[in-house]
Amino acid sequence: ALQRERFVSTMKEQAEIGGTDDGGLHRLALSDEDKRIRDWFADQLAAEDITVRIDEFGNMFGRRGGTDPDAKPVMVGSHLDSQPYGGIYDGALGVVAALELVRTLNDEEIETEHPIEIVNWTNEEGSRFQPAMQGSGVWAGAHSLEEEYAKSDVDGNVFEDELERIGYKGEEPCEPQEEYEAYLELHVEQGPYLEENEKDVGVVTGIVGFTWGAITFHGEADHSGPTPMHYRQDALVAAADVISQIRRIPSTLGERTVGTTGYIDAKPNSINIIPDEVTFTWGFRDPSDDVIEEARRRVLEEAEWAAEREGVEWEYEDRMRAPAVEFADVCVDAVQSAADDLEYDSMRIFSGAGHDATHMHSVCDTGMVFAVSENGKSHNESEYTCWDDCYSAASTIANAAVDLAGG
Amino acid sequence: ALQRERFVSTMKEQAEIGGTDDGGLHRLALSDEDKRIRDWFADQLAAEDITVRIDEFGNMFGRRGGTDPDAKPVMVGSHLDSQPYGGIYDGALGVVAALELVRTLNDEEIETEHPIEIVNWTNEEGSRFQPAMQGSGVWAGAHSLEEEYAKSDVDGNVFEDELERIGYKGEEPCEPQEEYEAYLELHVEQGPYLEENEKDVGVVTGIVGFTWGAITFHGEADHSGPTPMHYRQDALVAAADVISQIRRIPSTLGERTVGTTGYIDAKPNSINIIPDEVTFTWGFRDPSDDVIEEARRRVLEEAEWAAEREGVEWEYEDRMRAPAVEFADVCVDAVQSAADDLEYDSMRIFSGAGHDATHMHSVCDTGMVFAVSENGKSHNESEYTCWDDCYSAASTIANAAVDLAGG
Ligand SMILES: NC(=O)NCCC(=O)O
Ligand SMILES: NC(=O)NCCC(=O)O
Repeated sequence: ALQRERFVSTMKEQAEIGGTDDGGLHRLALSDEDKRIRDWFADQLAAEDITVRIDEFGNMFGRRGGTDPDAKPVMVGSHLDSQPYGGIYDGALGVVAALELVRTLNDEEIETEHPIEIVNWTNEEGSRFQPAMQGSGVWAGAHSLEEEYAKSDVDGNVFEDELERIGYKGEEPCEPQEEYEAYLELHVEQGPYLEENEKDVGVVTGIVGFTWGAITFHGEADHSGPTPMHYRQDALVAAADVISQIRRIPSTLGERTVGTTGYIDAKPNSINIIPDEVTFTWGFRDPSDDVIEEARRRVLEEAEWAAEREGVEWEYEDRMRAPAVEFADVCVDAVQSAADDLEYDSMRIFSGAGHDATHMHSVCDTGMVFAVSENGKSHNESEYTCWDDCYSAASTIANAAVDLAGG
Repeated sequence: ALQRERFVSTMKEQAEIGGTDDGGLHRLALSDEDKRIRDWFADQLAAEDITVRIDEFGNMFGRRGGTDPDAKPVMVGSHLDSQPYGGIYDGALGVVAALELVRTLNDEEIETEHPIEIVNWTNEEGSRFQPAMQGSGVWAGAHSLEEEYAKSDVDGNVFEDELERIGYKGEEPCEPQEEYEAYLELHVEQGPYLEENEKDVGVVTGIVGFTWGAITFHGEADHSGPTPMHYRQDALVAAADVISQIRRIPSTLGERTVGTTGYIDAKPNSINIIPDEVTFTWGFRDPSDDVIEEARRRVLEEAEWAAEREGVEWEYEDRMRAPAVEFADVCVDAVQSAADDLEYDSMRIFSGAGHDATHMHSVCDTGMVFAVSENGKSHNESEYTCWDDCYSAASTIANAAVDLAGG
């Protein structure tokens, strides 16, 4: 069994690196805080006599050997980066649980047939650089390394430069070096369903698909007073019309469909000037790829109509498209058995957030465990999961991983 | 008659101070560029042997004496500050025309009964600090000096500090030191009507009223994926709904009503976080104060409805309220006669932009001349008025001023 005290104190320790005054985390991908948490993670692995491998995209791996030289590794992990003002559980809980699993196996001298490999994926959050799940996406072959190296943040800092700056551009190629037996990831739910159903732990059956993109309207800057309404080419009005629809499109599609605009930037942004350039994002998710495609079609149609009404030009770019995934039965079953054996009250749940497991699904059998999120809140400093729920989920993934690794 | 060449070259000279690569102006109130244009303006007055007076709010005055010691001064002028990326005519044309009038009177040794006073008002644009027409507003008693001193720009720079920094916090109290005979101002129309009607010059009969304000919605930051639509408190959706209505309210009110959102700021502004704080502005204008009040009531009602729909909190602040003004017949007539005498084809026009004349109207008889704006474009670097039209308008105001000053 995992040592509860050590597990909790490790969670608290990581939360100090990039910790905010309001109890959250500010640990954006490839920031100074990300460098510090990576150094800390490498130290934790070293303390377990595990060699740290870093690939050319900054993904970090550490392997505990198995007894069967031919057995494929079981990978367990998540990410240590955070949202600008995120919670201390999102990502970190999955990495700390993997660490605690290996520590426990070492302490109790338990051997597994298959190696167990811990991973910390680069830029899961997708806040500073898009897309989200970028490190696992490149590693799994969903994105090209060169294209992702060239991405830049809103201040124009280039991904590859930032990766070099923090010293985490490694040697290993960013792709699987061998076959994997399975990938397991523990994450907080970030939604309300486990709590609403009064469950201890979630057995994740799959992950919603995504479409993310950005629309830019180009109008004409003009004086907000003497310019008659019918002369205007107002980029912000066109944007507002589409943002209102992004909120309303989901109710006409699936039960689980969500649509969000998280980002907007207007120029010249002066109280008495008609805005001439406005960029904003869309993000739709649903368990069905058809619904996702329909949502994307609809938002572009709304943009076309709004552009016509306002007489403005428009363009768009896709920033992320990920199909919905359904996890392998062998992993779902392993997680379910582990929860049942530990006598946790569990339920099957489909993830509404993206996870590195989305991409790992294309590499090997994949599964996930969810910990309860209080109030379903996440991407917010007030994200909260009680230590009991953290521990239940960590114990579930540990048992499932040992099961799959033949321990 | 005004010297056309000197007038045009003076216009070009001022346009170099804060001039942009695209032929516009970047000369925000109390910026380094504002300091430089003020120094330039003081030099021009000094060259005409006119003493420069600066009041405690930075308004600059220069007086050419009259022959009758009891005659009240006729004030002529406008402003030298600009929008972030504005045109070279907006404001500057009125100040240069006033300068050229005094130069011509000096050259031709023409005496007037009443003194003629040139003015450059502080922060007419209202882009960096709100409200617009701030210097004339304090001077005319519409705003309190202390409240306006305390205003700050988006970077937190305080008005009074910035005024001191550029060395233009003067000694003279910011209020009329005596009675005035009249105030005349030349400005570009900034709208399409003169050009559409193929006129040479506009005889302005009044200025629309304003209501400006800002609304802030406070929602809850949360994850854009696993958070179901009905759990959301999305501050940006509420803002978008109201911005769409700000565009639509005018068509249900007067023929000249306009409504604009020029500014928006969303937090935390990350693609996969539901925005929790969004601030945006409204601005409505109309020749009728009742319409203005109705528009303000309607936008606040829309905000209340949007807040209810989204389950967000909201607050607002008024940033400017100015009643519509109708100019004094004596000034309108003087402008009309001047245009007629000069054989310019003119039309009566009501200003859709605010001007310092709005406030001067409460101090003394006030009137304005409009120059043609090509394409009605303004608050944009491509603002354009041909030199012929600039000269016609400058000649009209010069003749009207001399008429009112008894010359
Ligand atoms: N789990 C999580 O927060 N992932 C970030 C990418 C996303 O789902 O928006
Ligand atoms: N004339 C002018 O551009 N004034 C600035 C204030 C406003 O009308 O918005």
